[in-house]
Amino acid sequence: MANSVSSKIEKANEEAVKRILSAECNLVDIESAGKIIPGFKNDLFTHAGPPIEWERMCRTQKYAITNLIRYEGLADTPEKAARLAETGEVTIEPNHNYDAVSGMCGATSASLPVLVVKNPVHGNTSYCLQQTSLTAFGNKYETITELDFVRNTLAPVLKATIKEAGGINLKEILATGIQMGDELHGKLDGTRSVFVSRLLPHIVKTDFDKDTLAQVGEYFNTNPGRWYGGNLMMASCKAMMDPAKNIKYSTIVTAMSRNGVDFGIQVSGLGNEWF
Amino acid sequence: MANSVSSKIEKANEEAVKRILSAECNLVDIESAGKIIPGFKNDLFTHAGPPIEWERMCRTQKYAITNLIRYEGLADTPEKAARLAETGEVTIEPNHNYDAVSGMCGATSASLPVLVVKNPVHGNTSYCLQQTSLTAFGNKYETITELDFVRNTLAPVLKATIKEAGGINLKEILATGIQMGDELHGKLDGTRSVFVSRLLPHIVKTDFDKDTLAQVGEYFNTNPGRWYGGNLMMASCKAMMDPAKNIKYSTIVTAMSRNGVDFGIQVSGLGNEWF
Repeated sequence: MANSVSSKIEKANEEAVKRILSAECNLVDIESAGKIIPGFKNDLFTHAGPPIEWERMCRTQKYAITNLIRYEGLADTPEKAARLAETGEVTIEPNHNYDAVSGMCGATSASLPVLVVKNPVHGNTSYCLQQTSLTAFGNKYETITELDFVRNTLAPVLKATIKEAGGINLKEILATGIQMGDELHGKLDGTRSVFVSRLLPHIVKTDFDKDTLAQVGEYFNTNPGRWYGGNLMMASCKAMMDPAKNIKYSTIVTAMSRNGVDFGIQVSGLGNEWF
Repeated sequence: MANSVSSKIEKANEEAVKRILSAECNLVDIESAGKIIPGFKNDLFTHAGPPIEWERMCRTQKYAITNLIRYEGLADTPEKAARLAETGEVTIEPNHNYDAVSGMCGATSASLPVLVVKNPVHGNTSYCLQQTSLTAFGNKYETITELDFVRNTLAPVLKATIKEAGGINLKEILATGIQMGDELHGKLDGTRSVFVSRLLPHIVKTDFDKDTLAQVGEYFNTNPGRWYGGNLMMASCKAMMDPAKNIKYSTIVTAMSRNGVDFGIQVSGLGNEWF
């Protein structure tokens, strides 16, 4: 009985749950994907959910990818960008192959600054883009100014702030936000406000000029920054779920993710396979 | 029937409720009580609730007042301070005589910086101290460092921040906090976090050095600043209730307040009398 499959499953799942509950998640850096994520090449574009062929992708997902192919300077028109994707001249893979996450139909490319979230209990690291309408909702390329702001202003300021703070405990912030009624997808005001509150003692110690810091402050109080808690949530959940992966016999679902067409799950005992 | 007392009361109460619901409250300044509150003299000490003779005051309230008599330099021992209070050589009155509020057993004196909250709809202004354990909970005089921080660091920084912001809409912040589960007395985390978030774009534009701004940031994230939402709430409620005062025939309660011994109310149609 002790060696039956069901007892092995039970024991494996206990271990998985133990790891999930004991995991922590600290925001330790913000850095461009190409620089910080192992194996993330300049011609790589990653998306949410299970793998999907270019032909089967929904228009929104395609748009996010072609936007970023242009943003990375690999093509100067949407048509040329689509051709590169179609012919496989650029690589398109799921985020999860790179310990990363994003919102559905979001895309990440090498020059995009990503949140670097470390789970100090189990030693693993997760990455998540800072969502913009250009990189997530198939918005028109002209909204690129938002991405420029994230890359050139928000990311450097937050990187310096995180360094000043010596890392930021996201589990505490997310838990506080949830107690304020956030469900961390549509309602995020509590989490974002607590996050901003935790930033204050450190952001003021960075060397950026007043106007730059004020722009970051404005971002968190206006529509573009509304969803920032979502970025924190995605990276943190991945950092806390990943230690439960690859436990032999465990049936715990370690990832649930969509690519705009297919919904996929990964199961602990079954590694990186999508179902 | 239209001229019966009950119809007059009904009409008066409708007007009172209309004023309360239409009121707004903006934090427009932080300034010392003696400088900003009309008639607030250097030897005046105000307390919450209805008037009460020195002899009948509870120990906590007495302690807050003698602490402040010493803080204002009018006495150098608690005994001398108590004697000044006992003999009437200093004036002790309810906050409400000066459009002000504080927590129960709190006390306000001339050099204390108070929040200045304006109701732009009806033109009235309310004032509220920034609570510390020295001025509210009869703590020992040695906790004076907290009050020094509030007076010399927090107040000047917030004053400059409010000026940069052109005033801060507190009704929106309090309403958001309440939707996050705050009841604004024991639970205040949502309100304070949203307030800090609203400060960020403006506090970084002030001319204070990094360490000073960082101290203010720390304050809002640690125990001393925990209750800041309470200060915002008290001043705002008074600013929004005061327009409903002095409406002939109105039976609406416009103030409920305690002095540590007595609980008192004021009723619109009955002016400043306490019951």
